[in-house]
Amino acid sequence: MSERINPDLQKERDAATFDVEELSVLLHNGAHELEKKRKLEELVRNDPDYKSLPFDFLSREAQYEEGVRRSTIAVAKKDQLGSLIENHGDLITYNTHVGRGKAGPFNLHTGMFIPTLVKQGSPEQVAKWLPLSENYQIVGTYAQTEMGHGTFLRGLETTAHYDPHTQEFVLNSPTTTSIKWWPGALGKTSTHAVVLAQLYTLGKCHGIHAFVVQLRSLEDHKSLPGIMVGDIGPKFGYGANDNGFLKLSNHRIPRENMLMKYSKVAPDGSYSKPPKSTLTYGTMTFVRAMIVRGSAQAIAQGATIAIRYSAVRRQSEMRPGEPEPQVLSYPTQQYKLFPLLCAAYAFHFVQVKMIEAYSEVTELVNKGDFSRTQELHALSSGLKAYTSAISNTGLEVCRTSCGGHGYSCASGFPALYTNFTPSVTYEGENTVLLLQCARYLVKCTRDLRSGAKLPGSVAYLSCGCDPSSIGKDFTNVKTLDSLYKQRALGLIRFASGKVDASMDGGMDLVGALNESSVHLVRAAVAHSHYFVVRNFFEKLSKLTSTSQLLMEVLHQLSLFYALDGVAQHSGEFLEDGLLSGEDVKQIRQLTVEMLPKIRVNAVALVDAFEFGDDVLGSVLGRYDGNVYENLFKWAQDSPLNKTDVSVWFVMWGKMGCSNV
Amino acid sequence: MSERINPDLQKERDAATFDVEELSVLLHNGAHELEKKRKLEELVRNDPDYKSLPFDFLSREAQYEEGVRRSTIAVAKKDQLGSLIENHGDLITYNTHVGRGKAGPFNLHTGMFIPTLVKQGSPEQVAKWLPLSENYQIVGTYAQTEMGHGTFLRGLETTAHYDPHTQEFVLNSPTTTSIKWWPGALGKTSTHAVVLAQLYTLGKCHGIHAFVVQLRSLEDHKSLPGIMVGDIGPKFGYGANDNGFLKLSNHRIPRENMLMKYSKVAPDGSYSKPPKSTLTYGTMTFVRAMIVRGSAQAIAQGATIAIRYSAVRRQSEMRPGEPEPQVLSYPTQQYKLFPLLCAAYAFHFVQVKMIEAYSEVTELVNKGDFSRTQELHALSSGLKAYTSAISNTGLEVCRTSCGGHGYSCASGFPALYTNFTPSVTYEGENTVLLLQCARYLVKCTRDLRSGAKLPGSVAYLSCGCDPSSIGKDFTNVKTLDSLYKQRALGLIRFASGKVDASMDGGMDLVGALNESSVHLVRAAVAHSHYFVVRNFFEKLSKLTSTSQLLMEVLHQLSLFYALDGVAQHSGEFLEDGLLSGEDVKQIRQLTVEMLPKIRVNAVALVDAFEFGDDVLGSVLGRYDGNVYENLFKWAQDSPLNKTDVSVWFVMWGKMGCSNV
Repeated sequence: MSERINPDLQKERDAATFDVEELSVLLHNGAHELEKKRKLEELVRNDPDYKSLPFDFLSREAQYEEGVRRSTIAVAKKDQLGSLIENHGDLITYNTHVGRGKAGPFNLHTGMFIPTLVKQGSPEQVAKWLPLSENYQIVGTYAQTEMGHGTFLRGLETTAHYDPHTQEFVLNSPTTTSIKWWPGALGKTSTHAVVLAQLYTLGKCHGIHAFVVQLRSLEDHKSLPGIMVGDIGPKFGYGANDNGFLKLSNHRIPRENMLMKYSKVAPDGSYSKPPKSTLTYGTMTFVRAMIVRGSAQAIAQGATIAIRYSAVRRQSEMRPGEPEPQVLSYPTQQYKLFPLLCAAYAFHFVQVKMIEAYSEVTELVNKGDFSRTQELHALSSGLKAYTSAISNTGLEVCRTSCGGHGYSCASGFPALYTNFTPSVTYEGENTVLLLQCARYLVKCTRDLRSGAKLPGSVAYLSCGCDPSSIGKDFTNVKTLDSLYKQRALGLIRFASGKVDASMDGGMDLVGALNESSVHLVRAAVAHSHYFVVRNFFEKLSKLTSTSQLLMEVLHQLSLFYALDGVAQHSGEFLEDGLLSGEDVKQIRQLTVEMLPKIRVNAVALVDAFEFGDDVLGSVLGRYDGNVYENLFKWAQDSPLNKTDVSVWFVMWGKMGCSNV
Repeated sequence: MSERINPDLQKERDAATFDVEELSVLLHNGAHELEKKRKLEELVRNDPDYKSLPFDFLSREAQYEEGVRRSTIAVAKKDQLGSLIENHGDLITYNTHVGRGKAGPFNLHTGMFIPTLVKQGSPEQVAKWLPLSENYQIVGTYAQTEMGHGTFLRGLETTAHYDPHTQEFVLNSPTTTSIKWWPGALGKTSTHAVVLAQLYTLGKCHGIHAFVVQLRSLEDHKSLPGIMVGDIGPKFGYGANDNGFLKLSNHRIPRENMLMKYSKVAPDGSYSKPPKSTLTYGTMTFVRAMIVRGSAQAIAQGATIAIRYSAVRRQSEMRPGEPEPQVLSYPTQQYKLFPLLCAAYAFHFVQVKMIEAYSEVTELVNKGDFSRTQELHALSSGLKAYTSAISNTGLEVCRTSCGGHGYSCASGFPALYTNFTPSVTYEGENTVLLLQCARYLVKCTRDLRSGAKLPGSVAYLSCGCDPSSIGKDFTNVKTLDSLYKQRALGLIRFASGKVDASMDGGMDLVGALNESSVHLVRAAVAHSHYFVVRNFFEKLSKLTSTSQLLMEVLHQLSLFYALDGVAQHSGEFLEDGLLSGEDVKQIRQLTVEMLPKIRVNAVALVDAFEFGDDVLGSVLGRYDGNVYENLFKWAQDSPLNKTDVSVWFVMWGKMGCSNV
């Protein structure tokens, strides 16, 4: 950052009305955490071992190789990080930076294999495999998804038949659809996997259980007999990850390889059940909370690139002789990007809230109180789906807002988007999750009738429907809160009513939910959207030591976020008479009038996220704004430029065309 | 297609209520054209010279190489196609099939270099370069866009200074931003380029002119002195295309290399102007019409893959013991895909209309009648932006509707999307085009006041605003037409009113348009959307020899398209009181109730587009529906599977972890 800053970008920074450092500290959970993050990132940035070409210049094989190389080095260097690693989160920060935000080959090992071992393994099993895992003497993955089975866990087809004579399980992939498909690092990297399979013993099926299966020899890394394992082929992104397949053919593993902390199979084949069935529950919720965080970061990164570049890029002469304006000055560009900038802030605050809620509920669960788990599950499902969907489409809006250069890998967007977009599918496909959220909302609506008191995020469902109470001061936080509340109430009650009507007509609950699913999805979206808006306002109201200047800016963002949301979804506010047509026109006008005010701080607002140039991987979004000279430099490294004359000349000669 | 068909897919086909062949003939402009298309495609399919691995398995370099190889072979085989090639369109069909729908290295040569030569070259210039070009003794591209200049043509910085002493032009890229950037095949393939540059002669600048510049030696293909040329690096897609850069340093070309059909520079440097300035006008409109066609095809391909796969994929047990339903049976899946299926049909009919309109107006222009060129320009701008935007986001909806497998390159979606998405940016960035369309609508609104009569697509602007006349029979075509008309009128008048008000306040037109641009974009979208809806209805009403059974199905599609459009944009219909909240609820309910009816024919409706498996490049969208066994086969070819043991084992050994 010592280089000359692009003057257009510098002007934007100079015009900001608040202190960027204050906001950075706020966003990074205090000065200490921010300082640590900076130091960890600098460590990676200055380490010659991590220097390499951008991933985009590498073939798939080379991307995998580079991913392994970086991750392997990171493991070796772990002990040198010393006091900078205060907790697991710091290590994740370091590793993410090493992997340039891409999924690395050990993610499943540290994120799923080891945790599953620890949570579901008996003390003997943990004692056997944990030290090996922690020293990377074995590397594991988590093999759940099958080619034909994702969402519906009970439908998994892989079988584990217990053979009491040899005291072994015999594992099989009985059909093509049962082949394990997608698990990260399964294809080439992992030596072991936790394999989920239907357990059969003494002629009875006991459902899905987890088994530790060795896949490859620890001597020569060759796949073992009965194990067919490989890479599932190229994907939209994730080039460095060997997402794999696994076909099991009469593969035998010792009885001791079934994870037996809870369920057990005795040597004679007799089966004993686990005491509780909701044990894996917290993990799912935590993973979804992490995706909400990922959604916040992704759209913040997209906004950073697009807004910085829009300040640098000048385009089209408005009046003859005038200089071409910065693209950021056009209202249409502002109208594309500022809603996403505001979403980045709204999502930041909601991910903080989600993780707080997770901690609270985990504490309750540890005390044996399960009263809020359902609510948390519904909330995390709805927010995961809502935020990831907005960030997913938002990233492409950011990319295309950069014009032609957005399409170049130099923009960083192709990598950013292809790396993020699986979020809308994994850990619960978004539509499925919205339906789970909605199902809980329907249940709450029914519980209310029998006088139940609803917890935190759904307490508002007991409010009356009263459009007339909303008020007309649309820059008032209370008015906006009421608007979103009434919209969510209306859609939830409408969908619930549809379900009730179907059931009154003789349908069962499952059928009724399915028949009304289109309406249920809308209800869950409105509920989640309301939660994000309300939480944004609430979080700001609780900031006590924040400066007045910064508070004003943040308040503006929350207001714009809420107002623009109404304008974008005006139909849902008009349909039930919450607003008149004139109201909507007024609200849209308010958003348009706010655009220049947000523009003043737009660059400073993305600077505060502090994504380093190496994390963004974007020539367009460089902190120094020196876009064009670096675009030219970047292109020189294109693999096609290794030689001046390409293979084409030879082919051309064969075509008989070269001799003029 | 001789293999066993997946039984779920066969059931769908058997249930169709209409004759697929009849619809195919209709979509392909008659039995003769359809037959020709089938034969051309079969020729490519059965030609061993065109066999190769999927592009997704190849590195960038290998993709380029394979693209060149296929295109070069296609050139050599051109003469063997005989009577199958009746016109230029047939050759495009063949070449597209050869290139598997990807942009090939000769696209700019045949699509831009030669046409520009022919249209803007003097007879001597055409006589010199055309035969060389047609025999591929030289290969050309069209170098307009610069690193810092896309949309705003007059802002181009490349200079061509005439030197009367040597009778040469001296070409320069005076700044980094002036480096030519993006032209297809410029990097490694092309020997020549038409370069657009600011012409200076006798101390005066005469604006942008076109120059033929040789880039590479015809002896050894090395780049010439003064020419720095290369590949701009990896992109989101377009791997086979060497989009390039060109930096000119005092590069001299003979005076005769300026294309001089219209403008001329005499040996002494004196300049003579062209007689007309709107000469390149028709080309732009034609290219945009082609993008509308491309949008129709892209979303039709996406719908084909997603709908076939949704019929094959079974997911989630609704009730214990029941088989998992086909994903296509879920209302939420239908609600995602059927609007896009209907859009594919709506866009098909509108691209036919666009090309008809282009022909009509071209005929008028050839007779010296320029009265409809502005209208056609506005219409093509609006429709290009509208249809490409819908298809662009729609493709990603299709992909994610396929769950996890949509993310694999085996789905075909990554290639389809990355190949299509430039359409929203090139040949006029979508927002810029919508503003051009809106600017014309504003002009029309003003012309009306002075009593002008408006042509075809904008004639409705003279209608009165009368919400009460709309009627309540929402399955009536006239009602729906009125609804869309009134919505467009309302938004156009609102935006025009804003512009007028700004000008009344003393602003100039340019400033007023810029200030109201957010509203203008909405107006142009509503105008274009109305045109698509109206044209869908009109085209169907003109089908005379179509069977009753097919007519019913097509009518259903047009109805669903219009109704769903209202439901999706309900705010704009409610805001001006065109509909009540109850009306919108009723319309949404109508769409939900139509879902199962459309589902009956969904697979047959995508079959009728007749995209061969090799064109779709999708394991999920195979005609035979044998998805899973072929997914497994496909993965075997992944480059990472060339060896069982990967590079990782060696790194692991170095890490000191392998010896347990």
